[in-house]
Amino acid sequence: MADDRLPRRVALLGSGVIGGGWAARLLLSGVDVALYDPAPGASEIAETQLRRAQRAWSRLTLAPSPRSGTLTLAGTVAEAVAGAELVQESAPEREPLKIDLLAQACAAAPANAIIASSTSGLLPTQISAGMPHPERFLVAHPFNPVYLLPLVELCGGVHTSPETIERAASLYRALGMHPLIVRHEIDGFIADRLLEAVWREALWLVHDGVATAEEIDDALRYGPGLRWSTMGTFLIYRLAGGEAGMRHFMAQFGPALQLPWTKLTDVPELDDELLDRLVSESDAQAAGRSIEELARVRDDCLVAVLSGLRGQSWGAGVDIAATERRWQRAALTATDGVAAAGDGLLHLHQAIVAPDWIDYNGHMTEYRYLQVLADTTDRFLPLIGAGGDYAASGSSFYTVETHIRHLGEAHAGDRLSVSTRLLAHDPKRLHLFHEIRRADDGSPVATGEHMLLHVDMAAGRAVPAGAEVLAALDRIAESQRELPWPDSAGRAIGAGQASAAPTPNL
Amino acid sequence: MADDRLPRRVALLGSGVIGGGWAARLLLSGVDVALYDPAPGASEIAETQLRRAQRAWSRLTLAPSPRSGTLTLAGTVAEAVAGAELVQESAPEREPLKIDLLAQACAAAPANAIIASSTSGLLPTQISAGMPHPERFLVAHPFNPVYLLPLVELCGGVHTSPETIERAASLYRALGMHPLIVRHEIDGFIADRLLEAVWREALWLVHDGVATAEEIDDALRYGPGLRWSTMGTFLIYRLAGGEAGMRHFMAQFGPALQLPWTKLTDVPELDDELLDRLVSESDAQAAGRSIEELARVRDDCLVAVLSGLRGQSWGAGVDIAATERRWQRAALTATDGVAAAGDGLLHLHQAIVAPDWIDYNGHMTEYRYLQVLADTTDRFLPLIGAGGDYAASGSSFYTVETHIRHLGEAHAGDRLSVSTRLLAHDPKRLHLFHEIRRADDGSPVATGEHMLLHVDMAAGRAVPAGAEVLAALDRIAESQRELPWPDSAGRAIGAGQASAAPTPNL
Repeated sequence: MADDRLPRRVALLGSGVIGGGWAARLLLSGVDVALYDPAPGASEIAETQLRRAQRAWSRLTLAPSPRSGTLTLAGTVAEAVAGAELVQESAPEREPLKIDLLAQACAAAPANAIIASSTSGLLPTQISAGMPHPERFLVAHPFNPVYLLPLVELCGGVHTSPETIERAASLYRALGMHPLIVRHEIDGFIADRLLEAVWREALWLVHDGVATAEEIDDALRYGPGLRWSTMGTFLIYRLAGGEAGMRHFMAQFGPALQLPWTKLTDVPELDDELLDRLVSESDAQAAGRSIEELARVRDDCLVAVLSGLRGQSWGAGVDIAATERRWQRAALTATDGVAAAGDGLLHLHQAIVAPDWIDYNGHMTEYRYLQVLADTTDRFLPLIGAGGDYAASGSSFYTVETHIRHLGEAHAGDRLSVSTRLLAHDPKRLHLFHEIRRADDGSPVATGEHMLLHVDMAAGRAVPAGAEVLAALDRIAESQRELPWPDSAGRAIGAGQASAAPTPNL
Repeated sequence: MADDRLPRRVALLGSGVIGGGWAARLLLSGVDVALYDPAPGASEIAETQLRRAQRAWSRLTLAPSPRSGTLTLAGTVAEAVAGAELVQESAPEREPLKIDLLAQACAAAPANAIIASSTSGLLPTQISAGMPHPERFLVAHPFNPVYLLPLVELCGGVHTSPETIERAASLYRALGMHPLIVRHEIDGFIADRLLEAVWREALWLVHDGVATAEEIDDALRYGPGLRWSTMGTFLIYRLAGGEAGMRHFMAQFGPALQLPWTKLTDVPELDDELLDRLVSESDAQAAGRSIEELARVRDDCLVAVLSGLRGQSWGAGVDIAATERRWQRAALTATDGVAAAGDGLLHLHQAIVAPDWIDYNGHMTEYRYLQVLADTTDRFLPLIGAGGDYAASGSSFYTVETHIRHLGEAHAGDRLSVSTRLLAHDPKRLHLFHEIRRADDGSPVATGEHMLLHVDMAAGRAVPAGAEVLAALDRIAESQRELPWPDSAGRAIGAGQASAAPTPNL
């Protein structure tokens, strides 16, 4: 996989939603693209898709995206494919049109170019009928939005060489995709057969007036659709069968195949041969993992997906937020929110490490530590009467210096708990010390030492805080008077270094 | 919705994966449950599900979950339903068994109790045939895992009263669920018709030897399944049609209904009536939102879902992580991204202050400063050959300390430019100093002083960096040898304080 290499130059034939999506993924990956599409507005579609792709990936990763490739508009097929290592056809789903385009492309492309079609379901052998070199041809079927979804189905025709499939898989992997090799040439390949079954059943439901488009969509996205982001039907049903496995599940639900649960009526006979095959394939897929293990993976992924949707206030995430509010409301009547741990410290904030806080090393990324610390400060300020209301009146505390020490790793799902010490204060300044620990075992994760200035926001200079704020600070300082000075507070970087690096200064 | 009230007590008839899932959701929500199931191990199943539910929800939210309800095992149906406000039957999918259980439950339950069946697809009118009060009966069909997935399909029979549906919807909402009212009594309701279509098509693919269970599952979870967590088929296809809307999409893809893209062959005729209905229902669903708007929602949700899966190192998230590593690696060789400004400093990073980086004071929020600084460090590391690829080989530089000084404000849209100085290094340590300035006028915004340790990631301890990395550091240090030591570097908090707060110590 490490050897997967980006194509040097790609020719795109056709720029609809799919062709434009290819353009976006390629350009964003730093690949130069030549686009042929005689329809008006072709390059605008590609540019719209590129803009969407840039936005999406800038939210998806902190990794620096490569310098964007260049987009050239070609006037002819021959011009587009000149020098291309990969030709990707995404014309409308009309067989004669594709046959003609692919034949032209193959005749004009470099001798080592791979020619691919994005067709959703036409057979590769048929659409490559006019090509002089069908051995270099395959179907590479992506999914909209092409710049985000990893799946690409690769399916060769009878003339396609194994080398073509291999090289194509490598090129698509280098583009960040997940090639799925379809081993038998079949209309609709794999995914579109499943999509088409859902689509036809959904059309029946609308046709028969059973449900509206929106109701049918809701039936997916609030339930089974959430699971499908994480596991396919076979693994999901294995889990539904419990420890007894797939054979048990089939004994329970096999008979339902005879029930009128879909209008699409032709069903395979569930004989011993099919049952044995199902069971052994399901066992292979589970690869020795227990149901408990699989249930944990499923649940953790669903939690991550639901957390993500909650962050977008969309779909099933809205229901999760409603439950949270309900629980918060119920708890409000029970406690005052500030846990009194008896250790003299303030306990103002907890946080769960969100999946998108994780960097490429698998740990919580650096700046999220400061987010947790700053959020704690944001809970401290209302406590001394200097919260949002106070800021609205014209003054506020601004952080002017921060010293963070990293003491342990935090991973997705970890629950963090922060304690707070008021180190010192005067009329204009506030010196805070936060400690982040893992809530489960109390192990230290980081400390934050923060100096804040009390600022007249309009004048932009430090002024004394109000009397009530200072009185509140005095009270907290008094309550923490007996606490020892934290080891690392008031030191310069490198001064309180861990034993792993013994020299105090470089 | 605010008036939705939890059921006081719920009777569960049957404790398989579904009954146990109900128990878990109810107990976690603080509802008392009486469980009737003559099979051995029934309460263990419920307890396993409760344990999973507690784990999942503790990762999903910081909101304090209510005090758990109590689980009582009942010896008879009558004992279970005594005092219950809701009776939920989740017995095996055998019609006579359900008819009998529901009749018993209805006869013994309080007069105002709602009786519900979890059946996946049996008709409510038929299974309520033995009930003295079928007006209080409905199907409430949940999805596994019941404690996490919000969807519950509500479907009444011919005798079900509208009040029963309404009261049930309210109770399920109070349990954090998303009731979908199925307006027409039909085998399989809505979701299971779609699930069954996928399932039958998938069985054909296995039966015909086209693909294995694992390949079929992959065809879902790396592509269309990701979308279904966010949007259903109709809205997804509307987006695929682009600005031209649903009629245009159907003109393009309607003909495919005649193609052999599934083995489930019965298809509705796409006549004007069906087409008009589809178009108007799709318009209603879009509710005036443009394709651009919907595409943004879709992409943001997909980004959130993919980020979540990356955090779990599962499915499509693994592909995203691979792209990140690839980009990191590419940044390593792209030395032309390093502007040589002639000042001896490294210029590795620029950033634009995004609108969502702004806090309630109107400035860039605290932790985003560290984001800009950490992003700069992330560009420094590939420069010395210690980027993503190096990390993949088992060692990496971890930040252990950070000292940030805030020198000026940054507002939405400001372009920030960061310069970097290598202060010092030894085999195990790296001491960096970044300065953030406004790109337009060069005015200072913040400085960051950072100590990084070179760590063997598996062993979790500091080890010397590789020779090539150290050589690269030597070269950079040599090129910056003449630069003066930055004023504020190597100082403790408060030591190099700005004139706004003249006292050097508190």
